[in-house]
This record gives sequence, C-alpha cells and structure tokens, in this order.
Amino acid sequence: MSESGTVAIVGLGLIGGSLARDLAAHGTSILAYDRDESRVRAAVAAGVVAGALDETLAGVSRAETIVVALPVDAAIVALRRLAPHATGARLITDVGSTKTGIVAAATATGLAPRFVGSHPMAGDHRCGWEASRVGLFREARVYLCAPRDAGSDALVSASNFWRDLGAHPTLLAADEHDRMLAWTSHLPHVLAAALALALAGAGLDRQSLGPGGRDMTRIAGSSPEMWTAILRENAAEIDAALIAAERELAAFRGALRHADIDETALRARFAGARDWSTA
Amino acid sequence: MSESGTVAIVGLGLIGGSLARDLAAHGTSILAYDRDESRVRAAVAAGVVAGALDETLAGVSRAETIVVALPVDAAIVALRRLAPHATGARLITDVGSTKTGIVAAATATGLAPRFVGSHPMAGDHRCGWEASRVGLFREARVYLCAPRDAGSDALVSASNFWRDLGAHPTLLAADEHDRMLAWTSHLPHVLAAALALALAGAGLDRQSLGPGGRDMTRIAGSSPEMWTAILRENAAEIDAALIAAERELAAFRGALRHADIDETALRARFAGARDWSTA
Repeated sequence: MSESGTVAIVGLGLIGGSLARDLAAHGTSILAYDRDESRVRAAVAAGVVAGALDETLAGVSRAETIVVALPVDAAIVALRRLAPHATGARLITDVGSTKTGIVAAATATGLAPRFVGSHPMAGDHRCGWEASRVGLFREARVYLCAPRDAGSDALVSASNFWRDLGAHPTLLAADEHDRMLAWTSHLPHVLAAALALALAGAGLDRQSLGPGGRDMTRIAGSSPEMWTAILRENAAEIDAALIAAERELAAFRGALRHADIDETALRARFAGARDWSTA
Repeated sequence: MSESGTVAIVGLGLIGGSLARDLAAHGTSILAYDRDESRVRAAVAAGVVAGALDETLAGVSRAETIVVALPVDAAIVALRRLAPHATGARLITDVGSTKTGIVAAATATGLAPRFVGSHPMAGDHRCGWEASRVGLFREARVYLCAPRDAGSDALVSASNFWRDLGAHPTLLAADEHDRMLAWTSHLPHVLAAALALALAGAGLDRQSLGPGGRDMTRIAGSSPEMWTAILRENAAEIDAALIAAERELAAFRGALRHADIDETALRARFAGARDWSTA
C-alpha cells in the first residue's frame, strides 16, 4: 500500500534532484533511485531523500506519485521496469523533453489511466545532483501530455503537482508538443552545438566571444547523452526544423555572394529577424 | 586650435552616447553630431554634451580626440567629411565592428598617422541614445587596429582613452581582427537571425521559447542597418564561417537521417560541443 503523499523519484539529476529538494522542503517524504549511488547518498545526507530504492524499482509500490527523471530513452526503460510495482500510485509522470515515445510506452505498459507526461521548461546547461536547487520550477512553463485514456484524476493530480511547485502547467497533445519543441528548443540546441563545433574547428575558444556569442553557445554545454536521446526520439520533426534553418542560412549566403552584395535582401532579412525578436 | 581634452563624437547611438556619458562624467567637454538632432538636444539637456556640431563636421577642429560612432559604412563617409577639419586632433578613432575598410579609408584620407580604429566588445541588441548608459565599457575588451603608418603617440592615446573608461585595449592587425570577428561575432549573429526567421516562418513567437532559445535569439533584435553594413564590409570572411556552420548542421542532419540514426555520431558531436563550451 502506498503512503499518502510519498513521492518516488527515479533519477537524481538536475531536474529530479531539484524536484526532490522542493518537495522535501514542503515536508513530502521522498524515495529515490539513481544508478549513481553516490547521488542518493548525498541526497539522504542532505536530508532531502528519506529512503533509497534499489534498481528493481520494486519500492515504488510505497509511493502515491512516481516521477521518472531520466533522459527520454532511459525513462522508457525505467517505466517498463516500474510498471508492475506501481500498484499504489495515483500519478506516474516523467520530465523528458520529448513526449510521444514516453506516452506510447505508458500505454503499452498499461499505465495509461494514471500516466501524464510532463516537460518542465526549466534547467540550464548544467546537469547532475550537484546542480540541483530549490525553486528551479518557480514560474516555469510545464507541458502536460497525456495518453488518450488518461483519467481526469491523473490530469488534475499532475496539474496540482506542478502548481504546488510554483510552475504553470499547460495541457498539450504529445505529437503537437514534439512538433513545437523541435522548433523552440531542439533546433536552437543543435544550432548552438553546430556553432560550438564550427568555432572549435576554426581554433577559437569560448573566451574569444563577445556577450552575444556567449549567449549563443551557453546551451552547447548540455549533456550529450540527453540530447542524443532527444534527437533520436524526435528525429523527423527536428530534421524538418533543421532544413528550414539551413534554408535561412543559405539565403544569407546567397545575399552575401550576390554580385556587389544584395544589401536590400540582407537588410530585409535582419529587419525580419529583429521584428520577430521584438514583437 | 583644439581645446585640450575636448572630444568630438560623431553619432550618439548606444556606443557614442555611452562614450559621451562616461567622458562627461569624467569632466571632459563633449562636442557631438547626430543626423537625428533630437538625440543631440537630449544629450545637451542631460548635461552630457557641451556643444552641437553641424553636418559639415567643421567643428571637429576644436577637438583633441575625434570618435566616429556610426555603422561601418557611414563611418567611412564621415571620416572623409571630417578629414580636412581634423587639424587639431591627436587621435581619430571609430567604434565599428569591422576594421579593414575604415583603416584603409583613414589611410586614403591622410589621417593614418593619427588614426587608430577601435572595436569595443560592448553593447547589446538595443540601440540609440535612449539605450546609452554610464559604464558600458567597464571590463570590456577593445580591439585596436592601426594603419601601417600610425604614430606611436596615437596608439598610446587610443590605449589610454579606453583604459580610462575601464576597458581592456588589445592591439590586433585589421585583417586578423576581421577574420576572427567573422567567427566570434558575425557568425553567431547570422545564426541568431536565421533561427529567428525559421521560427517566424513556422509561425512561432519568441514567448514560446525556453530560456535556451531566448538566449539564442536575443541578438537577433539588433539593428538591421548596422548588421547589413558589417556583412557587406566583411563578406568573404563571413561567407567562409557560414560555410563551416552549414557543414556542421548538415553533419547533424546526416546523423539523424542515417538508417536507424547514428547515435554514436550524434553523441560525439554533442560531446565535442560540450567540451568546447566548458573548456
């Protein structure tokens, strides 16, 4: 039987760790698993986590809410493993940046009625328990993506869960979420990484950048594992967004190479970018 | 005859206006021109500017230091106009983002012995006198690019000028400066503009971005006129940098499209970007 209010968190990275800190600060009892045991020990020592889960995840049976806070591919594996033990949970959720795959996995494992996927738009390029902190989700948008047969109880629980942390939950279909995020998050990330690699190839270091260039490459410091998983999960949508970005770059180069340079085109393109940015 | 310490500033935008504010705060007497007369009136009313210059720029004869703070193309025009009147100046400088063209123009107008081009790595996407402020150059790097026959007096004056404002002047050959800036500043800017245009094309607004995407598009709000001039002045170098960025983007797409997705390549690419960012 689950203990009222107990939350199980699978993965104590930046997001899972910050969730644990916020919930513990509210008096919630936290059970946690991380394949890096030192993180769990650190979280217990910090008084944030009340009990450790072993890798079978059988202990999630004691939790009323289960949060899988792993990269999207690992989250799907963990969801399959914990499904038979999630007997007492009223809400099972995750925090991944793509939602179609995890929602399908929840349906396949029979968790659909109690599963609502979450994507908190919080965090930065740092990762790990060491980077976790109280208040990470305050004022953050959180997308909630539910399977077709999720229960309204689970949806209300998920909304309340994030609202209690100061976040702003927004319901969205999983495929719509993934299409939008391909543009608003995944495309910027790949552009930052491409810029970092181009600069590395030119033998220039980050210290040589001005404030604009530093802004542009900050997120290139994010976890390679997490982003590889995101690109795999959302490949088709990201491919379409990358094609559009390449087309825009090619148009800039076309205007540059135009005999005597097409200043009218350049000015119109920069004005379009400025108008979008300041709208 | 020039008045000891008097500085003439041609252009009261973000950079020229901030220079005027800093210098006036140090007790320097400022003469200023802007084709938008309301800016000069505002600067006089604010007690920052002591006297207005007319568009002949004949009044620069009273200045010991002349700063042209205009977009690079307009700066070259202004330099030609003021050259015959710069009789009392010991230092003539500019603040443009490309340096080869202005250094050549200084040589062509006979100003070379007293000219040192400056490029302060300061400012942001905002522009105009309204955005100008005290302290903009504190701790900023400033590249100094001199014509072949600049005098050492002028070089020392330029160094002192910026150091007195709290900035860090660094000597660099003009062509080397332009090659480096094509990568560290102009490439990031075009990528930000391309991202803004791609998002605009997809019907998404800036409010839909997370913090990473907002960082990535902030500089897309900059002045279209200024950036068109920069791209024209530095077209060949920027073209080369854009080709490299397009190659990196194409490599990401190649790994995405690979049968079953080339995760090893994706992970290696993101790890390369991360290592560069955190080096």
